[in-house]
Amino acid sequence: MDTAERILRLLRREPVVSGEALSDALGISRAAVWKHVEALRAAGYRIDAQRARGYALTSAPDRLLPAEIERHLATERFGRRLACFETIDSTNLRAATLAREDAPEGTLVLAERQTAGRGRLGRSWVSPARVNLYASFVLRPRLAPADGPQLALAAAVAVARALRTLPGLAPGRVAIKWPNDCLLDGRKVAGILTEMDAEVDRIRSVVLGIGVNLNASAGAFPAELRDTATSVLLATGARVDRPRFAAALCGTLEAIYDRVVREGFGALAPEWESYSCLTGRVVTVECAGRRRTGTVRGIDAGGRLVLEGSEGEARIMAGDVSIVDGYRMLGRTGKEERP
Amino acid sequence: MDTAERILRLLRREPVVSGEALSDALGISRAAVWKHVEALRAAGYRIDAQRARGYALTSAPDRLLPAEIERHLATERFGRRLACFETIDSTNLRAATLAREDAPEGTLVLAERQTAGRGRLGRSWVSPARVNLYASFVLRPRLAPADGPQLALAAAVAVARALRTLPGLAPGRVAIKWPNDCLLDGRKVAGILTEMDAEVDRIRSVVLGIGVNLNASAGAFPAELRDTATSVLLATGARVDRPRFAAALCGTLEAIYDRVVREGFGALAPEWESYSCLTGRVVTVECAGRRRTGTVRGIDAGGRLVLEGSEGEARIMAGDVSIVDGYRMLGRTGKEERP
Repeated sequence: MDTAERILRLLRREPVVSGEALSDALGISRAAVWKHVEALRAAGYRIDAQRARGYALTSAPDRLLPAEIERHLATERFGRRLACFETIDSTNLRAATLAREDAPEGTLVLAERQTAGRGRLGRSWVSPARVNLYASFVLRPRLAPADGPQLALAAAVAVARALRTLPGLAPGRVAIKWPNDCLLDGRKVAGILTEMDAEVDRIRSVVLGIGVNLNASAGAFPAELRDTATSVLLATGARVDRPRFAAALCGTLEAIYDRVVREGFGALAPEWESYSCLTGRVVTVECAGRRRTGTVRGIDAGGRLVLEGSEGEARIMAGDVSIVDGYRMLGRTGKEERP
Repeated sequence: MDTAERILRLLRREPVVSGEALSDALGISRAAVWKHVEALRAAGYRIDAQRARGYALTSAPDRLLPAEIERHLATERFGRRLACFETIDSTNLRAATLAREDAPEGTLVLAERQTAGRGRLGRSWVSPARVNLYASFVLRPRLAPADGPQLALAAAVAVARALRTLPGLAPGRVAIKWPNDCLLDGRKVAGILTEMDAEVDRIRSVVLGIGVNLNASAGAFPAELRDTATSVLLATGARVDRPRFAAALCGTLEAIYDRVVREGFGALAPEWESYSCLTGRVVTVECAGRRRTGTVRGIDAGGRLVLEGSEGEARIMAGDVSIVDGYRMLGRTGKEERP
């Protein structure tokens, strides 16, 4: 912790702290205290200097700064090693580099903006600056590559749980669309990209990338996404405290990750199922050039989508799902409407 | 093809080719022909200049040069893009870089020597200079990561087939130890390291690394490997033409790879089984900290080892196998001897 962070911590304990008290506590001159306060202001902190009384922290910047995240962090490993960038090509690429350099499990890369944000299946991830969360975790599960999809499914539960902690997000508004899209009122609010570095029978590391649309305005999305994507701000009208949300996500993810590695996805399947927007729906799944249509019966303990079609039951490990049963999920109510 | 390679090709057609004929065929001066011949000699070719008759190619260097490999190559894709290095850290690392840079399927990286040759499970691969084969192929299979182990098993069949084409290697001397070690007279002669770059439900690229001990002398192995490792030269007394072997391996691999991607490993399981040295043996398999002991019944269509133990039948996707039934495979005869 550097001096500026220690000043922040002291300022958070009391409404007003005298320059002398700060100077004594840190063993630096009052002029040096002043210099650090100026640096904090430059980083976006509002610190009032009240004559003869001292300094008062009145607001923190809406920025993903390590000090802002760490003060909310209740984890053992996730987010404890933290690299925050103002601009980066892709948090997943950076985390993959850190993974190859032996970064410990739980290492987190955050960025305010991605210039080459990536999504599943080679797609891009729209990454406007300073409004959302672009987070990538380094994981080192003792699992076979075949178990990788279970991690991605579990991560969706962690994101859904973290979203549920936000004010205004009543049960039923947050949903998961298999395999791991998170929806808010039927529109995509978060996406997950899980990449592996593996031998064929052994995972070396996984980079779990999570993008969550938090405070993005409608204008932040390109026109073609405006009907299908949303942000928490758009859906609830309330801004999200992003550092607090980042810390909450570290917490739900650590708990869920440890459980899936220890007990397998089966232990999480009921919770996953409780968020699923596909169960009972008629869908088409595209996978490796093949299309299957059927009614979704749920998810099995291995994380496979159970689809009942005209040719019997199929269990599908991976694919892209479209709902074809004539319902659409739209609108703020989260209720289904016939088109 | 550069001029030196065209000269080589012309010299291979006839016992002796006149300088004038070369000069005419290539449209360069006789002095230029001489310059290229000198360069070929510097690269290790023996080219006799016979007075008034011309040039005669009497031997090619024992080197993994593109021209030497390509003239034996009968493949469509495998080995057609070829990068040969005198010294490299690891052919797999280089191939992984090429894979990220969109190298086409079948791209082959070869090196005469590796300074950081790698094996399975984070082990190293002993890589003395100019005697063996260190080869890494870029693959782009449309498979799920869960199917990756099938590629590694199939690759072992390709290596075994290529070894079987060598003189003196009668059936029964070449064996496969699950999952993908190749043995010669019961000693390890080749190893395979298969690495994936993948999303959890989609392989982006695979790097298939194959190390084959061809002409290594006993002294090339560290003391601790001398009882368990061998080379073709040590086992048969005959030197291997390494460029020809590299080309043969490209051929067997292309055929087998295309088959496993199209039809699944089941189509290759009988051939794999015909090489297996474990079927019927009592073994211990270590996998993710768990040990299982039982009798090997064979391999299933998914490439899993079928083990019959006291707790019933187990199908094992990955692990390290030790034979525990009191037999050892040693000696040049390939026969089993009681210790």
